[in-house]
Amino acid sequence: MAAKLLDGEALAGKIKEGLRKEIEELKGKGITPSLAAVQVGENSASRVYIRNQRRATEEMGIDYQLHELPDTTSEEELLQFIEKLNKDPAVSGVILQMPVPGQINARKVQMSISPSKDVEGMNPVNMGMLVYGQAKVAPCTARGAMELLRSSEVELKGKEVTVVGHSEIVGKPITLMLLESLMESPTPTVCHIATKDLAAHTKKADILIVAVGKAGLIKGDMIKEGAIVIDIGINRVPVLDEKGNPVLNEKGKPKRKTVGDVVFEEAVQKASYISPVPGGVGPLTTAMLLKNTVECAKAQI
Amino acid sequence: MAAKLLDGEALAGKIKEGLRKEIEELKGKGITPSLAAVQVGENSASRVYIRNQRRATEEMGIDYQLHELPDTTSEEELLQFIEKLNKDPAVSGVILQMPVPGQINARKVQMSISPSKDVEGMNPVNMGMLVYGQAKVAPCTARGAMELLRSSEVELKGKEVTVVGHSEIVGKPITLMLLESLMESPTPTVCHIATKDLAAHTKKADILIVAVGKAGLIKGDMIKEGAIVIDIGINRVPVLDEKGNPVLNEKGKPKRKTVGDVVFEEAVQKASYISPVPGGVGPLTTAMLLKNTVECAKAQI
Repeated sequence: MAAKLLDGEALAGKIKEGLRKEIEELKGKGITPSLAAVQVGENSASRVYIRNQRRATEEMGIDYQLHELPDTTSEEELLQFIEKLNKDPAVSGVILQMPVPGQINARKVQMSISPSKDVEGMNPVNMGMLVYGQAKVAPCTARGAMELLRSSEVELKGKEVTVVGHSEIVGKPITLMLLESLMESPTPTVCHIATKDLAAHTKKADILIVAVGKAGLIKGDMIKEGAIVIDIGINRVPVLDEKGNPVLNEKGKPKRKTVGDVVFEEAVQKASYISPVPGGVGPLTTAMLLKNTVECAKAQI
Repeated sequence: MAAKLLDGEALAGKIKEGLRKEIEELKGKGITPSLAAVQVGENSASRVYIRNQRRATEEMGIDYQLHELPDTTSEEELLQFIEKLNKDPAVSGVILQMPVPGQINARKVQMSISPSKDVEGMNPVNMGMLVYGQAKVAPCTARGAMELLRSSEVELKGKEVTVVGHSEIVGKPITLMLLESLMESPTPTVCHIATKDLAAHTKKADILIVAVGKAGLIKGDMIKEGAIVIDIGINRVPVLDEKGNPVLNEKGKPKRKTVGDVVFEEAVQKASYISPVPGGVGPLTTAMLLKNTVECAKAQI
């Protein structure tokens, strides 16, 4: 059996279409959603994020402001800068670009973003609302993975779900989202680095959600026949030829590709649905950033 | 094998002893921890709670203030009253007595208690800090159950834990506390009313934590040999004689007793450690209310 692909690009497209309408309505009421991105210092990786964010927001009609602070900015100065954005009525949402220089505690600064402008869903208030099943915004990747899972239209009630990875912004929020319904939740098990027999847990999972960041972690024989597999890992690995040697690019350097945590070619033979990497959860992470931004703009009416 | 009892009274006593020292130190700095209890309307059950709270706090040297509002109090009036207590520097902690009259959304009012005075650990901010593993205060029963579990001194790392019950103030917070450690967490599975095969999950649990409120739910044959069993249920049931008929009290009414969710007489033969009901988690719930109150007082220095 070859699994159906859970197409993140297509789903993200549909979600964005809905958001575009909401944004038009907001503009009709005189509100233009806006996202303020704060970048501290210079970083090539975050340059890429920023370019993508700018394109994604501007395509939607969301204002994008980039604030570039010098890499000597102190934590205190950054906190003050965030506080200014928190109070600025022209700003709907605030995002701190990662990474930040060593003198800054990124988590502390992220937590200081006002709950009502918290487009990454990382403020403790919004995390707490996840416990209560009442969150308006939530961590983008976790929320995106749930959207992709729901798009399979398989009933979640009573299903055995194994979540691999217990990070604060992916594994734990997903577990809370799975437990949202009082009467119709699935039964989640949260595995992680200290889990004694990971395969025993993945093999019994009707739904397997993997968010570790370790290529090759989940092999085909660890997957239950007919399971739904949501692969959240994003790993850059060398491309190998048939003999297992690295393929070189035109500059003579090892060619690299992006893979998830699941061995896709094996898993696709066992699963009923599977999210590919790239093209699965990734596009939804961006879509959820836009959705959170719109939610923040709506809450500020 | 007969399980060792996890004695909640004894552990609560030890914890209170430590708290008493902390309270003395606080008083040395001119701070007297104080707990403001808000009772709306008249209710015989909450009378008992209040009497117990008053005794427990006053024994510790914590000031106890009871605020009695009429049962016609509106939600808005109650929110304003809470706001006054939130701002009162003489108040370290605030607790809303349950139940409240029907015109009041209890959860909404509980959430309005300032995070820094949140002795029940129910404000979303504090719930969110549980996700981050950094909570200073946490829901009393969940925290008490974890203290009792830890008192067994059994290593949690890598253990299979089954949590039965996914309530917002017990099952979910316990799960988050179990997942607190990055490298040394146990592997929790959260079961609930929609779980398809509860016994399959309880039978494989090295640690079984039950918080449902249903007498007789967990029978001996559902428990793994040598498991640790933490029974959080508190149920009032009729006392039956050998023939299964209700025993009457001196007034001719059915005599009642308090039991947990676990069939104790059966479970005690299978488990290595078990928390009795009463005398297990119950006394720790009160001790954690005191601990949270002291934490709040310390945070206000």
